[in-house]
Amino acid sequence: MMSLNHHKSGKHFLQIPGPSPVPDRVLRAISMPTIDHRGPEFGDLGKDILKRLGKVFQTQQPVVVYPSSGTGAWEAALCNTLSAGDHVLVVETGHFATLWKKLAERMGLKVEFMTTDVQDDVLPHAASWRHGVDANQIEERLRLDHEKTIKAVCIVHNETSTGVTSDVSAVRAAIDAAGHPALFLVDTISGLGCADFRHDEWGVDVTISGSQKGLMLPPGMSFNAVSAKARAATASARLPRSFWAWDDIIEMNKDGYWPYTPNTNLLYGLSESLDMLLEEGLPSVFARHLRWGEAVRAAVNAWGLPIQCADASAFSPVLTGVVLPEGVDADAVRQLIHRRFDLSLGTGLGKVRGRMFRMGHLGDSNDLTVLAMIAGVEIGLKLSGIGLNESGVNAAMDRLSLPH
Amino acid sequence: MMSLNHHKSGKHFLQIPGPSPVPDRVLRAISMPTIDHRGPEFGDLGKDILKRLGKVFQTQQPVVVYPSSGTGAWEAALCNTLSAGDHVLVVETGHFATLWKKLAERMGLKVEFMTTDVQDDVLPHAASWRHGVDANQIEERLRLDHEKTIKAVCIVHNETSTGVTSDVSAVRAAIDAAGHPALFLVDTISGLGCADFRHDEWGVDVTISGSQKGLMLPPGMSFNAVSAKARAATASARLPRSFWAWDDIIEMNKDGYWPYTPNTNLLYGLSESLDMLLEEGLPSVFARHLRWGEAVRAAVNAWGLPIQCADASAFSPVLTGVVLPEGVDADAVRQLIHRRFDLSLGTGLGKVRGRMFRMGHLGDSNDLTVLAMIAGVEIGLKLSGIGLNESGVNAAMDRLSLPH
Amino acid sequence: MMSLNHHKSGKHFLQIPGPSPVPDRVLRAISMPTIDHRGPEFGDLGKDILKRLGKVFQTQQPVVVYPSSGTGAWEAALCNTLSAGDHVLVVETGHFATLWKKLAERMGLKVEFMTTDVQDDVLPHAASWRHGVDANQIEERLRLDHEKTIKAVCIVHNETSTGVTSDVSAVRAAIDAAGHPALFLVDTISGLGCADFRHDEWGVDVTISGSQKGLMLPPGMSFNAVSAKARAATASARLPRSFWAWDDIIEMNKDGYWPYTPNTNLLYGLSESLDMLLEEGLPSVFARHLRWGEAVRAAVNAWGLPIQCADASAFSPVLTGVVLPEGVDADAVRQLIHRRFDLSLGTGLGKVRGRMFRMGHLGDSNDLTVLAMIAGVEIGLKLSGIGLNESGVNAAMDRLSLPH
Amino acid sequence: MMSLNHHKSGKHFLQIPGPSPVPDRVLRAISMPTIDHRGPEFGDLGKDILKRLGKVFQTQQPVVVYPSSGTGAWEAALCNTLSAGDHVLVVETGHFATLWKKLAERMGLKVEFMTTDVQDDVLPHAASWRHGVDANQIEERLRLDHEKTIKAVCIVHNETSTGVTSDVSAVRAAIDAAGHPALFLVDTISGLGCADFRHDEWGVDVTISGSQKGLMLPPGMSFNAVSAKARAATASARLPRSFWAWDDIIEMNKDGYWPYTPNTNLLYGLSESLDMLLEEGLPSVFARHLRWGEAVRAAVNAWGLPIQCADASAFSPVLTGVVLPEGVDADAVRQLIHRRFDLSLGTGLGKVRGRMFRMGHLGDSNDLTVLAMIAGVEIGLKLSGIGLNESGVNAAMDRLSLPH
Repeated sequence: MMSLNHHKSGKHFLQIPGPSPVPDRVLRAISMPTIDHRGPEFGDLGKDILKRLGKVFQTQQPVVVYPSSGTGAWEAALCNTLSAGDHVLVVETGHFATLWKKLAERMGLKVEFMTTDVQDDVLPHAASWRHGVDANQIEERLRLDHEKTIKAVCIVHNETSTGVTSDVSAVRAAIDAAGHPALFLVDTISGLGCADFRHDEWGVDVTISGSQKGLMLPPGMSFNAVSAKARAATASARLPRSFWAWDDIIEMNKDGYWPYTPNTNLLYGLSESLDMLLEEGLPSVFARHLRWGEAVRAAVNAWGLPIQCADASAFSPVLTGVVLPEGVDADAVRQLIHRRFDLSLGTGLGKVRGRMFRMGHLGDSNDLTVLAMIAGVEIGLKLSGIGLNESGVNAAMDRLSLPH
Repeated sequence: MMSLNHHKSGKHFLQIPGPSPVPDRVLRAISMPTIDHRGPEFGDLGKDILKRLGKVFQTQQPVVVYPSSGTGAWEAALCNTLSAGDHVLVVETGHFATLWKKLAERMGLKVEFMTTDVQDDVLPHAASWRHGVDANQIEERLRLDHEKTIKAVCIVHNETSTGVTSDVSAVRAAIDAAGHPALFLVDTISGLGCADFRHDEWGVDVTISGSQKGLMLPPGMSFNAVSAKARAATASARLPRSFWAWDDIIEMNKDGYWPYTPNTNLLYGLSESLDMLLEEGLPSVFARHLRWGEAVRAAVNAWGLPIQCADASAFSPVLTGVVLPEGVDADAVRQLIHRRFDLSLGTGLGKVRGRMFRMGHLGDSNDLTVLAMIAGVEIGLKLSGIGLNESGVNAAMDRLSLPH
Repeated sequence: MMSLNHHKSGKHFLQIPGPSPVPDRVLRAISMPTIDHRGPEFGDLGKDILKRLGKVFQTQQPVVVYPSSGTGAWEAALCNTLSAGDHVLVVETGHFATLWKKLAERMGLKVEFMTTDVQDDVLPHAASWRHGVDANQIEERLRLDHEKTIKAVCIVHNETSTGVTSDVSAVRAAIDAAGHPALFLVDTISGLGCADFRHDEWGVDVTISGSQKGLMLPPGMSFNAVSAKARAATASARLPRSFWAWDDIIEMNKDGYWPYTPNTNLLYGLSESLDMLLEEGLPSVFARHLRWGEAVRAAVNAWGLPIQCADASAFSPVLTGVVLPEGVDADAVRQLIHRRFDLSLGTGLGKVRGRMFRMGHLGDSNDLTVLAMIAGVEIGLKLSGIGLNESGVNAAMDRLSLPH
Repeated sequence: MMSLNHHKSGKHFLQIPGPSPVPDRVLRAISMPTIDHRGPEFGDLGKDILKRLGKVFQTQQPVVVYPSSGTGAWEAALCNTLSAGDHVLVVETGHFATLWKKLAERMGLKVEFMTTDVQDDVLPHAASWRHGVDANQIEERLRLDHEKTIKAVCIVHNETSTGVTSDVSAVRAAIDAAGHPALFLVDTISGLGCADFRHDEWGVDVTISGSQKGLMLPPGMSFNAVSAKARAATASARLPRSFWAWDDIIEMNKDGYWPYTPNTNLLYGLSESLDMLLEEGLPSVFARHLRWGEAVRAAVNAWGLPIQCADASAFSPVLTGVVLPEGVDADAVRQLIHRRFDLSLGTGLGKVRGRMFRMGHLGDSNDLTVLAMIAGVEIGLKLSGIGLNESGVNAAMDRLSLPH
């Protein structure tokens, strides 16, 4: 395959905030021969996967698996629970929240796009993109909705475009405090398997996730974890749906099958990645993501560059957005680093395009890989003529020298 | 991964009509490390794939690739071109035509389900499932549609549930003869890459296909080949769509990218399978499928069992449906064969459940594999106490002894 | 890799008597990243493999693993136990016994090549190649060796060139009956993991084997299972040896390591194949090989062609030699079958070149694969103009229809 | 396979001086199904590999490929060219030269082990292990050999145990200057494909190499590149040989085959790695190894630790030996680094055990991987309480910031 010959000597450093590096065990698993998705072996595999999958979502409720990318799971969450013209509240935390909002509009929903009310000197045009969801603001808004026309509150747990994490349980509490019946829909596409996420305890109605981040799989599989309230909402939801319809899937899942052809080989990979996550234990998985986040932020602070996330309580353990001085083309820096070091970083998206890049530190990684990324970025920044205060690599090494 | 240890000694005979056996080259390709779907290497890969993909559809028009299974591509074909309440004509050729019809109804369309007017002694309750689409009947129906309320004619090229192939170009001629403006939507999920299919020459507006049949890939990828007329129809089509929307995809495909995360590793596999098909040449690919079909039918005829397809001009080169004597549970026979010989056959679906099974002869296969399948079926039929006229294996061997 | 593109559509039928088809599980295992052969993980792997390996040889004694092909293990068995000029007895059972004899001569040993005293009409020039070792003849010979100059008796358990299996325990009894101190060296390169072989119970001093037959691995790894008597013989053995020397290897194996770099990735595969064999259970493994042998011989008998092995008690469960009528070029037939059906058979070797071919039925296979091979051979024989009495496929199907 | 589950999160850093990291392309190649090593496809593969293999050795002479590890290729070089009791000169440059000397003794040769006459404060007991071969000393010795009893001069090009490279062409010149007929045998097991090596131009008679270093393959394959003079020497060489005998191999190689079963799957990998090396071009391959060596030495110098190699003209581009202060257990440091960072370094061998460790920088690697290794070592040294002068990582980053 000609195109894979692009790869230069050595391992590519895939440090975008997803797809994350796929472990060798998973790559071998997805290359096992495809089997009959209606045969007895498949049913056993399906049941076994579904039994373990809920543990990662920290739920006892059904988790619907789609043979599609995460964008499809956004659509699924909406079309299973809502009707054309329904009023939904989406909180603007970044580019992916914005994309979800646009998708909702294309589905025929009436979207209210709530922007957190903050000021910012560093990125004045994208101030809300430096903060998480403001639960109080949501509570206030819901209290004003006397007619209960708002059918759903939609937030992004870990904004992949910014490196800001929102407090999901606080939003749950806000909805409850407002005594509002809206469904609570949360995208944790890049959070699941990296940052702590508790579907049941946090009272989420639909959790949306994808395969290519903390689950360490190639893209092509997505998820809806579904509460009883969300399932009940399907009865009155009038948006057309067939491929995305939960009911048939949940029904057939009891025997480990799907109503239409599932993506068998990614399910092999999912089985393997669940083994890996559960063998290691979620607390240990979360701890290493937190450690990597701290190391990367130590480096960025040493350089003297602003971190995209302005709120220390909302730092993402998954990725870190680095804002460059005005006048610097962040994409040019990113491309220089890619050419020079075979290191892929995330580009600035939407409102922050050209102003920042994203350093991913998620999934199947380790301390030295994170240090390598920091070193590559540091050299790239210097070669781009950006003045740095101190050695970020040394700062990160200090952090990673601590006992754990 | 525990579940793959089910496999018994030796190669499993995956003889369902899809997923078809995935070649080793493709399995290795999909296990290459996942790369950044926004990086330059990916763009080169994407452009290269899209350039070659049209050759298999025999089209110069765009082919939209979805990270989803084939069912999604059905939905995509409808929601990009139609509006709620639109009248569409679907021809009942079998179980998959029936599923598509149900999907169309769930999407809010008004479906007219046309059944070919035939009588049958063997399967009187499923007579139309033994024949292909009747182009004359379609022409007559369209001539009666003076208001041109019918917006689309939907047929299945190769009915995976029956082993009957329909004459797509005859239906095109019928629509033209009736002077009707309806869009022409054709499902060739199991036909593409096995049976000759000509999107452009046959004037198809939307061709729907999937990865796991003639393209020899695992499931999880599907396709819409799209005519200019179909693309024009999107302007007035009001069904909600976002994930399935063609426009953004076709636009970004110009640079080899997709608007949302594509399933990178299956694209690696697609690149490899396109290489394989185009290196061999489509005429050679079609010829071996025709040969296998003839060999299998020679066997079934020797056994003295009815072939599901009652029309010799409509025999599928992809699979053959075998009808068992009344009173015999075809699934029990199928399961005996699976247990005894590690050979997976297709079950009877819908109206013909329990009355027949399906022998797949498609994709990455060869003459001896087809003979092995026939031998396994023959022993299984005998062990089930079904009287057979003659040796089917010998008849098939005679066919496969001919020069080619 | 250009050369692998030779492969035609479908699975190649690798029906030579080794290398046998490598299971997908093993191929995935050997593609895992290479690790440090001096690190702790390797030591654990090594110990675990060595603990299970003896079970397949049915021994409690050390099994030395070489990163070399089986020919090297022949050399190892000799150079560890013998000195230049030593007198050894090798029994001529076929081509591989002949090669071993030549190797022994090149090592500087004085080889007595004993030919079983039989007559034969079918292959008069290679009569002894249709029979196993004659234990009585060995006993007689040893009784005459009053000076005990014979240092070793060397036999081949399963002659890969003929499909004849010798009675190892009878030879042990013969040596004992003669009261002779010679070492007993047995090559079961193609027997191990297919036919019952008991290193300890049968009193073998050195068992030689290889990876690419019953162990279902690629070639490149070989074995010496070593009795206490054989190990003691190293003290006086004067043939130069370093790479092949047992002592260092056995010593370092205690911790799971090797004195020089082992072939790590084949060891991954060995670990997997041992899992497969021991999960299935050796009795079940042997039973399916016996069944396949019976099915193939039923076919050859139906065709009316002579089986290379003339002694029903010595039929190999691993392969069957088929003798063609005089005047027919067996290699031309074999090549026709290869071209036409992508089916590889074994060629006639040495004295029987051009007179026969070999059908392998070993390792990771199953009943339908064996039937496919028989079908391909039957068509090939007919296309070559060879008159056949009856359908061999039908005869084999009858055999494989029996309960097991 | 249970033992591979040892792997922690992320890519293991395999920074021993071989086996080097095996590229994904090679791992996929070796997992392709094993084919018949006597079939036509294999012959084409074999010829194609042998044609390209010589380019890496920079020779027009035959290169013999063994299915064995590098130790076997040492034995092969000796037993093909020498007779028991022959006098050979081996130069002590480190542990592997010492092992080769011992092997030669076990083969029955009379070995003169020449130690370079140097003094050293850092490692007084292993002074010669800090320098390359002294060509003058060899010339002097050969001049004294009036009877021409010395049959071979054996040196190690790149001492894997020390990180010292010797000047091969200078030794050739020395032999010529002395007018001595001795064969010139050179081990470049860890040099080939990393450091420039010219079999023909440098007049080497037998070049010994292995698969698991610059060729980026798993261990299990080794090589003898053979001059016409070396081949002529086989006529009078009396050491027993069969497995290692060149003649049969070279003869059969003409058609792309081997006299006994080759290790097919490693040959797939070799085909792929030759593609990779030749696509990149040897000058580029050598340049990146030189750059990595400079970066690592910059770091060690910054730390203020002695580099094992005391001669700047002999620095290895493949690995760097780092000597620790007396009283520090280098293995304890190495193990701490392994446990903490999943980074494997080479242990001190033989005379320098416990005094040093080895940092490998070879094969399929890149600048960031080298920096990650340096960072891991630096933290490990600090955690071990070893005082460092300056940041080695910063020094290496400076080096790797230079244009190339």
